[in-house]
Amino acid sequence: MGLFSKDIQTMDDLFLHLMQDIYYAEKQTLKALPDMVEKATNRELTTAFKAHLVETEKHVQRLDQAFDLIGQSPKATRCPAIDGILEEAKDIAGEVADKSVLDAALVIAAQAVEHYEITRYGSLIALAKQRGNDAAAALLTTTLKEEKAADNKLTSTAARKVNLKAAS
Amino acid sequence: MGLFSKDIQTMDDLFLHLMQDIYYAEKQTLKALPDMVEKATNRELTTAFKAHLVETEKHVQRLDQAFDLIGQSPKATRCPAIDGILEEAKDIAGEVADKSVLDAALVIAAQAVEHYEITRYGSLIALAKQRGNDAAAALLTTTLKEEKAADNKLTSTAARKVNLKAAS
Repeated sequence: MGLFSKDIQTMDDLFLHLMQDIYYAEKQTLKALPDMVEKATNRELTTAFKAHLVETEKHVQRLDQAFDLIGQSPKATRCPAIDGILEEAKDIAGEVADKSVLDAALVIAAQAVEHYEITRYGSLIALAKQRGNDAAAALLTTTLKEEKAADNKLTSTAARKVNLKAAS
Repeated sequence: MGLFSKDIQTMDDLFLHLMQDIYYAEKQTLKALPDMVEKATNRELTTAFKAHLVETEKHVQRLDQAFDLIGQSPKATRCPAIDGILEEAKDIAGEVADKSVLDAALVIAAQAVEHYEITRYGSLIALAKQRGNDAAAALLTTTLKEEKAADNKLTSTAARKVNLKAAS
């Protein structure tokens, strides 16, 4: 279902669609991360991916709570954006011989996921506040801060360990 | 071609792949923006999309220059991430009756595009600096600043005009 589906006629429809979109994105990320943990060769990068796996589980739980707060059952809607982003990250065939190239590619792929989630949580928080769902907005804000921190952590790890001297 | 294709064995391969990825993304964005300009109903939002259309043309030109600086011909490589992000933005069937909902959906879609480009330019700048391509890095940094400014402009327009009180 796209953002401009006939099913979306009100701000409430738009909010619910984005909740289902990010729920799908977090669950797909949860499936993709173990492979990234396994493929990463730098120890600090492996640790960062493992920590983000634990955080992502919390993000799904917070979304469950947020769905409850808005009186809806948690549901995932397939969205092509995160599928496209993760398609690259999943395509790790172990064919890259150079470990630093592999680690750099993993960081770059992970940061694209983070940025997608950051923009979606930003939009969701705006819509939640507009609807007066302050408790849901607060939950989503906690997750947004963790996504931004994860992105910054990847940037600093890349600069110090993966030979990417500056990053997004 | 994914980030972990057999064709990517070195940092140079990774850099070139990302250059071709963002070249594709900018060109696809250029195709998508006129429809967003046409669909937007709020005048300030229309103006913001028009301004970003002009900027996006410059981004393509800067990429042409950057390809030249690294001794490569400009080439676009299809990447599923931006296709997925734009698929939602393109799916504007004009079925949304409520103008504020339509405008909000347009802002949300555009910000997802901006964030994808922001993360890719961040990665490209890191790789360009690592390769010693300082002139290319400077060009890409100019574009990155414009992408971030466009994202901030959308956030402020959304807060003031499109009834999204906070945004990413």
